[in-house]
Amino acid sequence: MIPSGADSNGVLATNAPVTLFPSPFPRNCFEEATALQKIYNELYARITCNEEWLGKIVEGLIEVDDFVSNLWKVHLDVQKEGYVQNLSLGLFRSDYMAHVLPTGAPALKQVEFNTISSSFGGLSALVRQMHTELLASPPGSSINYPPHPLLQSEVPPENTAVETLAAGLAAAHEAYGVSKSIPALPLCVLFVVQDTERNVFDQHALSRQLKTIHNIPVFRVASVDVLDQTSIPSSNPSRPLLYQPPHSPDSTFEVTTVYLRAYYSPDEYKSTRDWQARTHLERSAAIKCPTVLNQLSGCKKVQQVLAEPTGPDHLSSFLKGNDAALVERVRDTFAPQYDLSVNSQGRDLALNPDTALNHVLKPQREGGGNNVYKADIPDFLRSMPESDWRGWVLMELINPAANAQNVALRNDGEVLRGNVISELGVYGTILWENTGKILHNEQGGYLLRTKGKEVNEGGVAAGFSSLDSALLF
Amino acid sequence: MIPSGADSNGVLATNAPVTLFPSPFPRNCFEEATALQKIYNELYARITCNEEWLGKIVEGLIEVDDFVSNLWKVHLDVQKEGYVQNLSLGLFRSDYMAHVLPTGAPALKQVEFNTISSSFGGLSALVRQMHTELLASPPGSSINYPPHPLLQSEVPPENTAVETLAAGLAAAHEAYGVSKSIPALPLCVLFVVQDTERNVFDQHALSRQLKTIHNIPVFRVASVDVLDQTSIPSSNPSRPLLYQPPHSPDSTFEVTTVYLRAYYSPDEYKSTRDWQARTHLERSAAIKCPTVLNQLSGCKKVQQVLAEPTGPDHLSSFLKGNDAALVERVRDTFAPQYDLSVNSQGRDLALNPDTALNHVLKPQREGGGNNVYKADIPDFLRSMPESDWRGWVLMELINPAANAQNVALRNDGEVLRGNVISELGVYGTILWENTGKILHNEQGGYLLRTKGKEVNEGGVAAGFSSLDSALLF
Repeated sequence: MIPSGADSNGVLATNAPVTLFPSPFPRNCFEEATALQKIYNELYARITCNEEWLGKIVEGLIEVDDFVSNLWKVHLDVQKEGYVQNLSLGLFRSDYMAHVLPTGAPALKQVEFNTISSSFGGLSALVRQMHTELLASPPGSSINYPPHPLLQSEVPPENTAVETLAAGLAAAHEAYGVSKSIPALPLCVLFVVQDTERNVFDQHALSRQLKTIHNIPVFRVASVDVLDQTSIPSSNPSRPLLYQPPHSPDSTFEVTTVYLRAYYSPDEYKSTRDWQARTHLERSAAIKCPTVLNQLSGCKKVQQVLAEPTGPDHLSSFLKGNDAALVERVRDTFAPQYDLSVNSQGRDLALNPDTALNHVLKPQREGGGNNVYKADIPDFLRSMPESDWRGWVLMELINPAANAQNVALRNDGEVLRGNVISELGVYGTILWENTGKILHNEQGGYLLRTKGKEVNEGGVAAGFSSLDSALLF
Repeated sequence: MIPSGADSNGVLATNAPVTLFPSPFPRNCFEEATALQKIYNELYARITCNEEWLGKIVEGLIEVDDFVSNLWKVHLDVQKEGYVQNLSLGLFRSDYMAHVLPTGAPALKQVEFNTISSSFGGLSALVRQMHTELLASPPGSSINYPPHPLLQSEVPPENTAVETLAAGLAAAHEAYGVSKSIPALPLCVLFVVQDTERNVFDQHALSRQLKTIHNIPVFRVASVDVLDQTSIPSSNPSRPLLYQPPHSPDSTFEVTTVYLRAYYSPDEYKSTRDWQARTHLERSAAIKCPTVLNQLSGCKKVQQVLAEPTGPDHLSSFLKGNDAALVERVRDTFAPQYDLSVNSQGRDLALNPDTALNHVLKPQREGGGNNVYKADIPDFLRSMPESDWRGWVLMELINPAANAQNVALRNDGEVLRGNVISELGVYGTILWENTGKILHNEQGGYLLRTKGKEVNEGGVAAGFSSLDSALLF
């Protein structure tokens, strides 16, 4: 959008795509998503603790997914040396749609669960604030709402995403304890970000909260600078991660918590140096948000295995100790998902043109934008060798209602109007020991992303969907 | 900075130039400026009410200043038809420097008084907030303050510019009374802005305050659209100003108050149509902020006449009824100013190379950037016909201390460091009847603009100086 070279100092900004009105979202689905976030946090913490189970899934992907394979290697390398930090921090976001049942009633269905770089907490709180102000603005104001009972009587639910996510980081910072350096160094939290990050204001909302409310020093380092600006003294077996701010090389901080807003996509690893940097962080004493294992627990294949309608009940195993009814409510949020192995139900459903119509084929590999829908699925599968089918997951389509209308302001200034579909994300944060002991488990805040009815893909930053807030009905 | 065409939808934004630290400013000067704002408000209201006195000054400028001449014609045209609104609103900003006396003590000296489009109230409140947060940020934070006792112990004074300026607009909206239309129309405030305005967020701070706190509908219209989007029904002798929002042409609002953030510079009047638009607003029943007469009261020639060390004591005349000591405190803020008429003291001081060194020559005409300094003055004057000298005002230089240091972030991303000079602006608002009766008179909020020691010109938007906040000492 900005011609390259026109903003060499990186000072220009534009809005994230945003809707002008809040969109309706079924209250029962919103409340269910909120109610289940803490048990979802626990589920992914427990999966991460079960290295054997996770390892089997990963090993099945190694041949078809370089990225998973390389992440696993990082884990094996660090494991060989021995981990020096037994705490993990998760800042998660569980994404859902309100699926319309044959009865017409809405039911909560999970789209995906994010265990790394769960974004938009900062901006979505601001969108909620903007919508609330506009709803309260005087009649006849320049952006007047269309007359609709929901818009007259409701305001979007409070959005505490910033408070919740920052409190998670602060809990990790606290749990890290005293400096492991001799003499002791001042402690800080480190945000590792993409060199070309555009979504900086979303991240600043969290660092500002950490600084001003929790009084914790926060620094940002681009992933390409990790090896230059951080170090682990070889003389210290505790392996503290030290950070030297480039603007003040005489001050050295010890990093309690590494918050990754980078390293989630394969195309961020351009050379072995990037993998070295990731390994360097992983082997340090800093608490990682997330660890490599926790990142791997969020891969689509894990979600497919949990949601496979037949086969072992992994969900109940991971959540044993919880109320059985609560576990079933988690299971109810799964849309059926299948692998495409020989003679599997998934393969039948995908290749049959009739049943394919009710499904989406999702690549296990991260990156987005590559889903294959409905009638396209059989031919798409037949166009590649069967050995590659392991890299794909078949998921029953979620059918959200699409009778709501909204107006979206894109980040290039274009204004779009029309029928929309909304996706709800709910934030949660959890801090746990690799023994399974949970130190902090909270839910708070949400993201609503709204897209035109005809758009199939999801990411806000890619410009397809807009940040929104919810009016519950 | 942005290549033309690269931002055709006007969605890109950059920061206003801003300092990273608050700058020191003498407490006695800050407090005196604050204490004098309400009597300054009154002074300029009284000047505006004295059409005869103001007319004489204007008539002396007609041959050398087209802009003043054309503004005066607008007044005469409306006067001929008869004004229908006897209320005027002023949103003023009085600008000062802390002049170092021979004793070394600082004294408050006025640079200029602004009666139209006094800007940066919204942004300067935000800069104060940013500096306060940075001062409170944890030790060792990424923008750490240099160790200095002032930075350890003080915070910038509260900045209530947004509250004060919006309350002035709200007072006018209230004083307008009921709709003059039959049937009655809903009422609104109208911001008239430049078509190419870049400083929109400063203005949005005021409209947001009006909407959310005062519950008043606010619309924005570009000055080029005034004649298309507003009208005065010829059948209504009260001449209400009607506004039809282009996005909702079926709704019509009656404008109580026209707030001009346009029409202050000669180059904004590109054709007779622009003058027609200004006349159209002036003859309407809306309360103008400011009227043409109030705008004219702010011309440099008026400030020179008030500050002329010899001659009639206009200041005391305008402020009669006020405590004499208070009037003298106003006079103490004047740096001596002179006209350049034949045999005048001003002409002698300007042409003598020795005395010229202590002066600045300012054009009466608005537009900025054309001051002539010190040794350049004699030759500059001799390069033009003496008949044009009437268009210039000679002012004794203010000598601010320049031992403070700061770091400024320009709007192109460049970072400047060095010794700086600060200029203080104090905001005030006043609503009065043309009989002289004052209905609302308040002071609140300030602007500190800081520039490198070697820069002579002032405007923030032009990129020469940076928004700042003050630490008082």
